[in-house]
Amino acid sequence: MFLNNIVTSYSVFKTSKMHKGRLEAFSDGVLAIVITIMVLEIKVPHGNDLNALVPLFPIFISYVLSFIYLGIYWNNHHHMMQTVTAVTGDILWANLHLLFWLSLIPFVTGWMGENSFAPIPMALYGFILLMATIAYFILQKRIIAAQGKDSLLFHALGKDLKGKISPVLYIVAIASTYVSEWIAAGIYVLVALMWLIPDRRIENALIKADKNKLKGN
Amino acid sequence: MFLNNIVTSYSVFKTSKMHKGRLEAFSDGVLAIVITIMVLEIKVPHGNDLNALVPLFPIFISYVLSFIYLGIYWNNHHHMMQTVTAVTGDILWANLHLLFWLSLIPFVTGWMGENSFAPIPMALYGFILLMATIAYFILQKRIIAAQGKDSLLFHALGKDLKGKISPVLYIVAIASTYVSEWIAAGIYVLVALMWLIPDRRIENALIKADKNKLKGN
Amino acid sequence: MFLNNIVTSYSVFKTSKMHKGRLEAFSDGVLAIVITIMVLEIKVPHGNDLNALVPLFPIFISYVLSFIYLGIYWNNHHHMMQTVTAVTGDILWANLHLLFWLSLIPFVTGWMGENSFAPIPMALYGFILLMATIAYFILQKRIIAAQGKDSLLFHALGKDLKGKISPVLYIVAIASTYVSEWIAAGIYVLVALMWLIPDRRIENALIKADKNKLKGN
Amino acid sequence: MFLNNIVTSYSVFKTSKMHKGRLEAFSDGVLAIVITIMVLEIKVPHGNDLNALVPLFPIFISYVLSFIYLGIYWNNHHHMMQTVTAVTGDILWANLHLLFWLSLIPFVTGWMGENSFAPIPMALYGFILLMATIAYFILQKRIIAAQGKDSLLFHALGKDLKGKISPVLYIVAIASTYVSEWIAAGIYVLVALMWLIPDRRIENALIKADKNKLKGN
Repeated sequence: MFLNNIVTSYSVFKTSKMHKGRLEAFSDGVLAIVITIMVLEIKVPHGNDLNALVPLFPIFISYVLSFIYLGIYWNNHHHMMQTVTAVTGDILWANLHLLFWLSLIPFVTGWMGENSFAPIPMALYGFILLMATIAYFILQKRIIAAQGKDSLLFHALGKDLKGKISPVLYIVAIASTYVSEWIAAGIYVLVALMWLIPDRRIENALIKADKNKLKGN
Repeated sequence: MFLNNIVTSYSVFKTSKMHKGRLEAFSDGVLAIVITIMVLEIKVPHGNDLNALVPLFPIFISYVLSFIYLGIYWNNHHHMMQTVTAVTGDILWANLHLLFWLSLIPFVTGWMGENSFAPIPMALYGFILLMATIAYFILQKRIIAAQGKDSLLFHALGKDLKGKISPVLYIVAIASTYVSEWIAAGIYVLVALMWLIPDRRIENALIKADKNKLKGN
Repeated sequence: MFLNNIVTSYSVFKTSKMHKGRLEAFSDGVLAIVITIMVLEIKVPHGNDLNALVPLFPIFISYVLSFIYLGIYWNNHHHMMQTVTAVTGDILWANLHLLFWLSLIPFVTGWMGENSFAPIPMALYGFILLMATIAYFILQKRIIAAQGKDSLLFHALGKDLKGKISPVLYIVAIASTYVSEWIAAGIYVLVALMWLIPDRRIENALIKADKNKLKGN
Repeated sequence: MFLNNIVTSYSVFKTSKMHKGRLEAFSDGVLAIVITIMVLEIKVPHGNDLNALVPLFPIFISYVLSFIYLGIYWNNHHHMMQTVTAVTGDILWANLHLLFWLSLIPFVTGWMGENSFAPIPMALYGFILLMATIAYFILQKRIIAAQGKDSLLFHALGKDLKGKISPVLYIVAIASTYVSEWIAAGIYVLVALMWLIPDRRIENALIKADKNKLKGN
């Protein structure tokens, strides 16, 4: 009887297309806010000359780096969600878990920037990036689990080299802050570039290939 | 004459599908902001070592708890809205009433966290959760009232055990802060788990049942 | 030649349905943020007992009042936009003008609340409400101008008694702060109730009438 | 083999309509937040008389100017996106680059306002506007590159006089702060008016022309 009600409830709720729309809208909302409230950390200085801006420089650089990371996450989240056909409770919560770690980026960005890239804030920044990567990985697994090994995402991921190298690089970065915080800084920039640059080249190449194919037909 | 104008106005405005879209979009917007501005309570500390993070620990734990509660509300709101076909003024205002109490969660989360779970802030946290639960209950009633006893939501709810136990547990939690704030803390965690865990198990079970049925046909 | 380009440009851009969707999405976003950032004015107090909450009481009451006003604006904006078929530049800017005055509500709410309803903040609150009402009126006129006297909105508005009384009441409220700020407070509550309560009764009555008609057929 | 996976991945992800929807939703979200958090710079004053508002006057004027600029960007972004049919990685990143510079407007608005339009903050304000204009130009180029010289946007832009004059005027404004900050102020107002006013007149003229043509048929 009780189970019966839940079964009814479940089939009622299983109009998954709407589901996906709101999942995306909510994620877009959270990411838009996270990417924007970081700018509140760049506090308006009291002086009105260029010197007043000097102490803001590390905060600005941190902002740029985190803006790029959040842009990469938004971009990839976007792509991944396009392969999703049905949204399960698992996917909803795996998504919220990812948003949780991303929501901490403004805090670690502020701490890193205001301490001019001191070792411990640098390590914590890497830790949050690591947790976000793991959360993203879990979300991928949940989507594939819900949609089976024939899912688009499973095939699209392929060997997912970048997805596997990134967490290793974050761990190296965190450990490297014992030696020098600048190794970590270099790794964070490297990982961002790794996600940012090549995809665009490949995509452009593919668009051209696509056009040539169209001409050929 | 005057009534006539209003009648015209009413039928003009009764394209309820659009209605629902904006109701969801606005609710998603408010919930995305509420869940994200809580992180502004985790103020960037002045020190740059791990000790600087220690006083932030209760604030962080409060953030995690409230993030989960807001995730549960977003999730359930989402499900409930999928059963709505026509949006009335009653539903719009019952929804705003719910958003009002949820918008106070960042405040009580901050107060609870900054006072390391002192009794009175703990009780106020429970009070806001209680009011949000009542507001959610009113919203359910308004949806069923607008759509009749044959509405999908009415059947989907069934006995709604969790919906009835939660406010009782919040009242117990509020009262228990006289004795020890940790009883309240335990209850808040318990209610969150109650909403978080079993649904996913049931849903997974149902998905499997669904697949087996498909194979059977 | 130059004009020709602009003509091309104009017809290209005239796919007005998309237009309306983004106009609504942007307005929803701004209103969701405006309604939510007001809660940041309720600063977390330093004490951890009930006395610590006492100075927050006028701030809380201001928040409730402004939450209701913004809820009314969202609700009415929503209804009005449903009658819009084509979006012109005039409508876009009239809408931004309305959002501008609404965006100042958190500021005046904070000023009014932190000064426990002192006369000048009370008058400024009324002034912002007055400007928002005028902006809403201009937006209505722009929509009717774009769509002609046969537009749905023109007929739906009818005599628009509430729309005409509200600005008069705000002016009375602003003037009354010379005598006593509580007259103004009473008027603000009255106007909110005027928009909030009767519409729901009429709507409910109409839904019932609608159902009876359906049974009759 | 590896390239093959990426190719699969690319075609999987090439359902560009959804793409565009989320690109717009995310941009709307960021712009709605940027335009709204600026109001947080107008800090609630301590006094409760009109004198307490006097120091806020330059901050308020800065807010009005930036609100108009962001309104213009939202408006134009909106128009431009309507010509987009397929979204590439290039377009996504060019769009994020634009949002990055726009996200810095609250900071420069606050700095300019709190220093009552001092020369250096005035110059930085112009610099951010210049970078946003350049970013907007790059985004236009990326859209045209992705869609070819027959793209709607390419034809719609025509000679794009305003798009070419604006960066020149910003550079003049930045340089003019050496002489007097009021020249820069005048230029910023002028550029805003240039974008704001004429388009509406042309559009209105065109709507009338459109109606006359319809009558003629």
